Amino acid sequence: MAILYHHPLCPHSRFVRLVLAESSLSFELVEERVWERRRDFLLLNPAGTTPVLSDTGLLAVPGAGVIAEYLDETVGPVLDEQRLMPADTLERVEVRRLLDWFNNKFFEEVSQLLVHEKIYKRYMTGEQGGGAPDMSAIRAARSNIRYHLRYIGYLVGQRNCIAGDRLTYADLAAAAHLSVADYLGDVPWDEDETAKHWYARVKSRPSFRPLLLDTVAGMPPPASYADLDF
Amino acid sequence: MAILYHHPLCPHSRFVRLVLAESSLSFELVEERVWERRRDFLLLNPAGTTPVLSDTGLLAVPGAGVIAEYLDETVGPVLDEQRLMPADTLERVEVRRLLDWFNNKFFEEVSQLLVHEKIYKRYMTGEQGGGAPDMSAIRAARSNIRYHLRYIGYLVGQRNCIAGDRLTYADLAAAAHLSVADYLGDVPWDEDETAKHWYARVKSRPSFRPLLLDTVAGMPPPASYADLDF
Repeated sequence: MAILYHHPLCPHSRFVRLVLAESSLSFELVEERVWERRRDFLLLNPAGTTPVLSDTGLLAVPGAGVIAEYLDETVGPVLDEQRLMPADTLERVEVRRLLDWFNNKFFEEVSQLLVHEKIYKRYMTGEQGGGAPDMSAIRAARSNIRYHLRYIGYLVGQRNCIAGDRLTYADLAAAAHLSVADYLGDVPWDEDETAKHWYARVKSRPSFRPLLLDTVAGMPPPASYADLDF
Repeated sequence: MAILYHHPLCPHSRFVRLVLAESSLSFELVEERVWERRRDFLLLNPAGTTPVLSDTGLLAVPGAGVIAEYLDETVGPVLDEQRLMPADTLERVEVRRLLDWFNNKFFEEVSQLLVHEKIYKRYMTGEQGGGAPDMSAIRAARSNIRYHLRYIGYLVGQRNCIAGDRLTYADLAAAAHLSVADYLGDVPWDEDETAKHWYARVKSRPSFRPLLLDTVAGMPPPASYADLDF
């Protein structure tokens, strides 16, 4: 069975968990604390980041974007209606543009800041860069998330899903990154009803259920986090 | 003809120029100063970043990674020996891993810092974020580039090119990002002979020539920059 090296609150790992579940692929989760820079993990991914998908024990596929392309090439064509990438060239450009938007831009501007400051630093030693959260980074993330939420509302207001009429990688990436901010109580849902309704739809999918059960010791999510009618 | 919105010293734009030239595709260059946030450009790419490839006037493909996938899907199969992505699944994983390494990791840790601080800020108004370069960012880039250079030497020492035996997107991305640091005199070539020889090989390809002719007004490159036997 495939193994996914992940962290419960790593947004890129969450994206891949959603993708695997939506594709009806079974996998085993192994938690990786990337700040420990475990030697065997660095051999799988020299960049030292989660997620890494180790398929059949022979192949390590590192990184959310690389895993998405790998799965679309290897199992996409047999998934039919479940396929998370459209077949049309222009539609593929749009999915990839938005996949990059959430996995890189939203990550840098929002989810990486929140997870690093609020979660990872709790577990890191002083030498590893741990310590109290940098409040200016958290404030920046809380400010940045507002325009991303408006952008999601704008996109979904024009079409049924983030990148078009059907559910694609773009929806799962957007929802995965938002879910981490939501766990930390940092999504101002009241500011965009359209984005909120879209998230409620994605969140109620069976693929999302395992993510809603994850908890970080000593840091429970707000009550609305796992509430499907939040 | 396709139009590439670019900046002469934007490493992602340079990567796409190399890809287009290696694929024997003709294109027209339009310089974009992203910090001006031109409205018509933001319609092409809401992320507001270069490069954007506007193909046939109908389709805008934004971002180095998205353009690379788009071109591999549309023209890759007819390029035969010139194709910049392998056909084999495992080899494609390795090319994409390293493409991401240079376009995202090297960019964040090295080339973005250098270009932003040393070039873009010269043209930006105070309101746009212009001003004197932040020397701590430049020092960080100069420190980070050393381990990237060793990693390139390690990879090329094991195989002929960055991601395998043949020239791929990974070589062009690595060389594009390095070329910007080289323009600014910030590559410690003496620290890795293997990396240096690989770069000399890539730099002497005809696709590289236009990049070596670009200059920024008032900021000429060092003499070794365009020297093929540097």
